[in-house]
Amino acid sequence: MQNQSAYLLKAFEFEIRDVPMPECGPDDVMIEIKHVGVCGSDVGFFEDPTYGGFVKEPPLPFILGHECAGVVTRTGKNVKHLKEGDRVAVEPGIPCGKCDYCLEGRYNLCDNMIFMASPPFQTAALSRYISYPAFMAFRLPDSVSTLEGAMFEPFAVGMHAAKRSGIFLGKTAVVLGSGCIGLMTLLACRALGASAVIIADLYDNRLAKAKELGATAVINSSRQNLMEEVLRLTGGKGADFVFETAGSKVTAAMTPDLVKKGGKIVLVGNVHEDVPINQLQLNNNEVDLLSVFRYHGIYPLVLDAVASGKVDVSGVVSHTFKFEEVQKAFECALNEKQTAVKVAIEF
Amino acid sequence: MQNQSAYLLKAFEFEIRDVPMPECGPDDVMIEIKHVGVCGSDVGFFEDPTYGGFVKEPPLPFILGHECAGVVTRTGKNVKHLKEGDRVAVEPGIPCGKCDYCLEGRYNLCDNMIFMASPPFQTAALSRYISYPAFMAFRLPDSVSTLEGAMFEPFAVGMHAAKRSGIFLGKTAVVLGSGCIGLMTLLACRALGASAVIIADLYDNRLAKAKELGATAVINSSRQNLMEEVLRLTGGKGADFVFETAGSKVTAAMTPDLVKKGGKIVLVGNVHEDVPINQLQLNNNEVDLLSVFRYHGIYPLVLDAVASGKVDVSGVVSHTFKFEEVQKAFECALNEKQTAVKVAIEF
Amino acid sequence: MQNQSAYLLKAFEFEIRDVPMPECGPDDVMIEIKHVGVCGSDVGFFEDPTYGGFVKEPPLPFILGHECAGVVTRTGKNVKHLKEGDRVAVEPGIPCGKCDYCLEGRYNLCDNMIFMASPPFQTAALSRYISYPAFMAFRLPDSVSTLEGAMFEPFAVGMHAAKRSGIFLGKTAVVLGSGCIGLMTLLACRALGASAVIIADLYDNRLAKAKELGATAVINSSRQNLMEEVLRLTGGKGADFVFETAGSKVTAAMTPDLVKKGGKIVLVGNVHEDVPINQLQLNNNEVDLLSVFRYHGIYPLVLDAVASGKVDVSGVVSHTFKFEEVQKAFECALNEKQTAVKVAIEF
Amino acid sequence: MQNQSAYLLKAFEFEIRDVPMPECGPDDVMIEIKHVGVCGSDVGFFEDPTYGGFVKEPPLPFILGHECAGVVTRTGKNVKHLKEGDRVAVEPGIPCGKCDYCLEGRYNLCDNMIFMASPPFQTAALSRYISYPAFMAFRLPDSVSTLEGAMFEPFAVGMHAAKRSGIFLGKTAVVLGSGCIGLMTLLACRALGASAVIIADLYDNRLAKAKELGATAVINSSRQNLMEEVLRLTGGKGADFVFETAGSKVTAAMTPDLVKKGGKIVLVGNVHEDVPINQLQLNNNEVDLLSVFRYHGIYPLVLDAVASGKVDVSGVVSHTFKFEEVQKAFECALNEKQTAVKVAIEF
Repeated sequence: MQNQSAYLLKAFEFEIRDVPMPECGPDDVMIEIKHVGVCGSDVGFFEDPTYGGFVKEPPLPFILGHECAGVVTRTGKNVKHLKEGDRVAVEPGIPCGKCDYCLEGRYNLCDNMIFMASPPFQTAALSRYISYPAFMAFRLPDSVSTLEGAMFEPFAVGMHAAKRSGIFLGKTAVVLGSGCIGLMTLLACRALGASAVIIADLYDNRLAKAKELGATAVINSSRQNLMEEVLRLTGGKGADFVFETAGSKVTAAMTPDLVKKGGKIVLVGNVHEDVPINQLQLNNNEVDLLSVFRYHGIYPLVLDAVASGKVDVSGVVSHTFKFEEVQKAFECALNEKQTAVKVAIEF
Repeated sequence: MQNQSAYLLKAFEFEIRDVPMPECGPDDVMIEIKHVGVCGSDVGFFEDPTYGGFVKEPPLPFILGHECAGVVTRTGKNVKHLKEGDRVAVEPGIPCGKCDYCLEGRYNLCDNMIFMASPPFQTAALSRYISYPAFMAFRLPDSVSTLEGAMFEPFAVGMHAAKRSGIFLGKTAVVLGSGCIGLMTLLACRALGASAVIIADLYDNRLAKAKELGATAVINSSRQNLMEEVLRLTGGKGADFVFETAGSKVTAAMTPDLVKKGGKIVLVGNVHEDVPINQLQLNNNEVDLLSVFRYHGIYPLVLDAVASGKVDVSGVVSHTFKFEEVQKAFECALNEKQTAVKVAIEF
Repeated sequence: MQNQSAYLLKAFEFEIRDVPMPECGPDDVMIEIKHVGVCGSDVGFFEDPTYGGFVKEPPLPFILGHECAGVVTRTGKNVKHLKEGDRVAVEPGIPCGKCDYCLEGRYNLCDNMIFMASPPFQTAALSRYISYPAFMAFRLPDSVSTLEGAMFEPFAVGMHAAKRSGIFLGKTAVVLGSGCIGLMTLLACRALGASAVIIADLYDNRLAKAKELGATAVINSSRQNLMEEVLRLTGGKGADFVFETAGSKVTAAMTPDLVKKGGKIVLVGNVHEDVPINQLQLNNNEVDLLSVFRYHGIYPLVLDAVASGKVDVSGVVSHTFKFEEVQKAFECALNEKQTAVKVAIEF
Repeated sequence: MQNQSAYLLKAFEFEIRDVPMPECGPDDVMIEIKHVGVCGSDVGFFEDPTYGGFVKEPPLPFILGHECAGVVTRTGKNVKHLKEGDRVAVEPGIPCGKCDYCLEGRYNLCDNMIFMASPPFQTAALSRYISYPAFMAFRLPDSVSTLEGAMFEPFAVGMHAAKRSGIFLGKTAVVLGSGCIGLMTLLACRALGASAVIIADLYDNRLAKAKELGATAVINSSRQNLMEEVLRLTGGKGADFVFETAGSKVTAAMTPDLVKKGGKIVLVGNVHEDVPINQLQLNNNEVDLLSVFRYHGIYPLVLDAVASGKVDVSGVVSHTFKFEEVQKAFECALNEKQTAVKVAIEF
């Protein structure tokens, strides 16, 4: 067993290197990685290892990847819920279990979180083998593939947003943006019982994918009036929930026009400039604007949603590359934004 | 018994006119008004009966006032919980009880709400007698005056904001603005157990009032750095809850800097221009931005908070005028914004 | 149009009588009844009009029936959301909209509730025409039949129980009893995302129906050990939620053995003697025991669950009789308890 | 520094023994114990080391005590929030931080909880020095004594019960039992804003203490009719919340008679036989019966409630003994149940 990792040397350049096998502690499992999803943030680091100045001195070279699933090849001596040969999806953050946030169950806000591929932490998914705390490895039933397991991570983002919003049987949602996170939010809303999910994007191919995955209506906002269409589709009331996943200042600012009196807006996508919000409109309708950061306690939910057949999470994957083609995979993810909804890497 | 109402004839001009006694229906009580508070929105209509263009054709002349308490002088035949001579505080909105919002208990969003002094509805508090649905009249115990009863309405605004936020024993709050609603929010936060309430304003006299009413720290942001002070007072973490009550775009935009990771912002004051929000900062800290519209189910709470002596709501009243001096009362409220925290009218 | 109602004259005896057409007030709709479900409580009154002594002096003769749907034949002048010809399901309780319970959204506890067929109130469903407040009539889309609409009422009972419990995507439930309410609770749990619903009963035919309607496992407790089976099916942990719908003291007392640490028990069925509860066991596992009374705000949810095809509520109906056969219908419901899961009457 | 612990040798017999100083790991603090409270469970083990057969083979001799506070004498190298000389209250359970319950914030149900003085775990408070994970040691401000700090534990039990119930400003409570946990529940209800707390017990001296600590009414149920009095004091409606703290089957069974429609019952005290519950009465009023197990995330709240002066937790302590008098302290706690509300041991 020769371990290998894909190192980002500098912007736009990967190199696969031989590395030692990791230690497997008493509470850990050794995992042979089978699938890794390429996240927008991975692509961001690929393009600019400072991530727009966010990481002052990126510890180059480093390893990317945090959406992954694989096969357990060894188990530490305290590990009871997993055994060799089990296929697992990996939740990529390890909370401390002791800070105020962990103690109240919001471990996504953990003061001491160790998150895969977030510099300076060096464990990351684009490796043949990783060792990982077993409590964050979730056994996949036979009906769920490791490709689907790798998709749990982006699905968890959508599911956390949907769960936080309180969406429920019979409610309506608008999802702005039909990229990976938009589609995952759509799937999550459907899994939580939303009766109607309207999805808007600028590209027809993405909207076609949304339809295929369960959107009840789609709006191409490059040629349709978004607000008029949403009001028409909701009997003039607006949607109970509006999820902005495009990370666009323009669509984020429009959300108060699309939401029903008493409804909720969730700004899922990160907007890198100030969003002008009509606060008077929010107040007159007592509409809340929620935010989301990663997820907590969501992997069991997404596992169930996929295993039970409620959602088809693999439908989001548009391109697959071999590990050896990691450079190509990232170039695809970077350059074909409109068609490459989700790039996955297989080992 | 000659009824009289104070009619706003046009901007800046009241006239007290004799009017007929109102009908008292089977579910109504007749109330002899004893105290009325002058709300910021009342002053707004006084200054500009179109309320900045919000009311296209104001039905002049009309009657203002919705913060009121008085004495029951007659009861309709179905009324059981009140009797002649009872002193009552009046909740100024009458929900329909049948729309979706009413049925789910958020009657502040009622599709058919009739709210005092909101044109075109003509019943309003600046009258000697009003007839009102008994279920929205709350009996005051001996320990609570009608002046305090009239203050229930602005206190209900602060309490609804505080209750919606989920503030709890041991939590910390920042209140931006030390006007009437800021002070009421302070009182509400204290009544709900907040261990520390920091209040910020530009004027020392308002801040002195805040201290007197229970603020644990005050910041004069005309000469202190608001963010630095809040961080200093909260051990570098920010406050669990931030309430913006000043209705200022500038302070509203600062709220993400003042709130703790995982905390909540409540924009209580209405801001009449777009607020530039740093959404990325909200998301990175999973901070929610809540809005509030009036209140529902809050009068029993504020009644209890006042009756039990937990809060001194009358401390907010800075000036009192006779009904005959209504013109003067409004001029005071309009012109002496810094000193006139709250103007009340007594009959 | 000759109106007729089925009057219960005394125990075990109905008579269909000509009655006048009801008045249709400005907020009412006139409904031509198409389907009525026979509820266990209807059968209880049929058997004993004092309902086991609960109604001291039953106002005989009276009309039964509260699970109904029909066609709108006239609308009062204030009614906007319905028109002649619309098919509607009727929520059979009319809350006052003004008491504390109504104002907080728990209108099922309304102090002044008027509920169909609950003596002394005389409006009830076993009539050719009723007049009813429009806000409690829910328009059925073309895809939903009036038979299904009549089943909304028992489904609402199960849905309220499931919703109150907080059941969610990925959770497991045990439902004790596979009669009408047990099956409705099963459907509700599935509609709210439960990953596994185990249902237990003494009769194989009822369990077969449960399987057909989505139970993931069934237990015949006449020949299987209920506790052992539940523990086996839940990996030794018990179920997240346990719903007792059989109204049996014995099964109610067993619920603490079937529920997971931190889980919830809902006693849906009414038990007419004291239930011996092992409170120490509940406390050691911090298990709550919830109760349920009718429902509030549930009709929109059940309408959506049925209209979207998530559940097949008509599958619960085992027998159908004509209105003229009302006597026979009730005899069937009374005498064939094992096979007659649900008797419906059609007009 | 010679460490010593008080070992329970067998029923009714303690011996103080010299023991080695404990190890202080990198995440631990060494604490010199200053005050320990004697809990009912401690007395139970003193009387019968099998705790009524619950512990099959008690690992005698062992150390008791889990309500404690002291002074930090050393800090492990990773400890940042505490320093030598800090006085701290100790939360006596150490959750794993990794199981499902911990991850959702209900760490009181942790699958791997290590709880002080719970056999077989040997660390316990009746020692001169203990070493303890720093994240469960809470720094006391100057205004809070270590005696008060030792009382945080029983106060946390009452506070968890009150918090779980959802008691709020303006609500009413009945507390059954005026022993230590009853009084702590009273203090917690008051701290959370309850407007009225009625407390019932059989002994006047305990009721006098309840009055002193803030009960708004007391009922001596040995000579007053509990139900009649509660109904009289609540205007015939019953209390919003009923807390049973006496651990009595009789009072537990009465709770449905004392609670308001839509209210909640919390069975805090452990009842060691089945409680006969009138489930039909609960259902007709949609009353929930909640249970409680220890607490989670409560120490920050009780610290705040005590530090802010909202409650006087030391008022519960009726007797104090020196560590050397541990035998006498336990005999007092055992034999003088009526007068010894709470026995504390000081070092």
